Amino acid sequence: MEKLTIIKVGGKIVEEEATLHQLLDDFAALSGYKVLVHGGGRSATRLATRLGIESRMVNGRRITDAETLNVVTMVYGGLVNKNIVAGLQARGINALGLTGADVNVIRSQKRPVQEVDYGFVGDVKQVNAPLLADLIRKGIVPVMAPLTHDGEGHLLNTNADTIAGETAKALAGLFDVTLVYCFEKRGVLRDENDDESVIPTIRREEFRQLVAEGVIQGGMIPKLENSFQALDAGVAEVIITQASAIDGASGTHIR
Amino acid sequence: MEKLTIIKVGGKIVEEEATLHQLLDDFAALSGYKVLVHGGGRSATRLATRLGIESRMVNGRRITDAETLNVVTMVYGGLVNKNIVAGLQARGINALGLTGADVNVIRSQKRPVQEVDYGFVGDVKQVNAPLLADLIRKGIVPVMAPLTHDGEGHLLNTNADTIAGETAKALAGLFDVTLVYCFEKRGVLRDENDDESVIPTIRREEFRQLVAEGVIQGGMIPKLENSFQALDAGVAEVIITQASAIDGASGTHIR
Repeated sequence: MEKLTIIKVGGKIVEEEATLHQLLDDFAALSGYKVLVHGGGRSATRLATRLGIESRMVNGRRITDAETLNVVTMVYGGLVNKNIVAGLQARGINALGLTGADVNVIRSQKRPVQEVDYGFVGDVKQVNAPLLADLIRKGIVPVMAPLTHDGEGHLLNTNADTIAGETAKALAGLFDVTLVYCFEKRGVLRDENDDESVIPTIRREEFRQLVAEGVIQGGMIPKLENSFQALDAGVAEVIITQASAIDGASGTHIR
Repeated sequence: MEKLTIIKVGGKIVEEEATLHQLLDDFAALSGYKVLVHGGGRSATRLATRLGIESRMVNGRRITDAETLNVVTMVYGGLVNKNIVAGLQARGINALGLTGADVNVIRSQKRPVQEVDYGFVGDVKQVNAPLLADLIRKGIVPVMAPLTHDGEGHLLNTNADTIAGETAKALAGLFDVTLVYCFEKRGVLRDENDDESVIPTIRREEFRQLVAEGVIQGGMIPKLENSFQALDAGVAEVIITQASAIDGASGTHIR
């Protein structure tokens, strides 16, 4: 199968001009088929603040009322997405910005209210893999915003890590998929105060051991659990690294 | 050649929920290949006001400084475009939201500073007609926001009438194109105070006569000049009508 690299980058990297330009240079230089999934949370919070809308987060997720949905639609679907697309076009990459609503790429359902009412937040139901594969094979590079739709006319806010993971799983039957999660650190660290202590490879048994030892904790646990789920679904490799290393040469490789 | 209808709707119609829903119902019901081009100026002005950014218009065009460019990118490319796309998907239309940057659909150049510095405003240089035609023939319905790009990484604000006209001209060699401009009135009126006085057909010689008589004046003159230019470039018909009549059965037909 042909190789496909799916890169997920967080808000911080795409929201500052210098780091965005470096990322776009690095992404443009990646060989083979590729997809970029981006966040934009910091810009959304900043815009919300300017508009006098309070940003409320629970378990790292944004409570999305109707006004907040408009904010993230503007920031993720407009400001961040279209600037990335224009920047990639300038680098010779035939980028196409997509929310889940565009060509029905990602259908979701509004998260049911349990302990928390997240509001207009969507859990992914279906990724339109054949259509995405068709675009990718034409040389088009999808740039995916963290927004989905319910098929009934409503946009829904959806976590960018989830968009990347679900897209990787859906495309795993059609490509040899590498999923790269970029974050602030060089990889999963053995010692959070030592940036050089990157764990180069984590297999499932090691993951259990590292959690038991308390080396891996907090938000890294669901990130790694999602990575193993992606591998179970046929994704070839998941890499957790810095945005400056999206070629996957360094970082933590989940296998 | 196969028929293609390009509908341009202004901000007012797409910015109010009731009129937007009616428009989406009507647009979904149109048979054959179709493209929707939308504005969003009122929402852009509203957001700018909330952000303390002054909206300055010259000759009906928005002066677009860097902050205003961000506002229109959020409103046109995000809020308005993605809500239309989600609304059309709910009606079984496989909509795809596009700015000019997406798959390099419309390349423009920043308007040179003459008497007025319009800022980040783009004049259309090239519409990627083969790519648009390819999408349309696949059953995809482009929903075009009034934003273009210069190919050097910059988004540019571009008038929605111009986007519609240039797209119609570019596709005229590939489809039998009808271009429908929707505005507040039922058509070009013989008496601006009488909504029933729609002129059903205007040919070039009649246009000159009506201008000479003072029946057609102000902003309607460039609208009609653009319509005749579209006809010169091979567009089959231009219709000026209300959003409630996008099937083209009424309104003013420019031939």
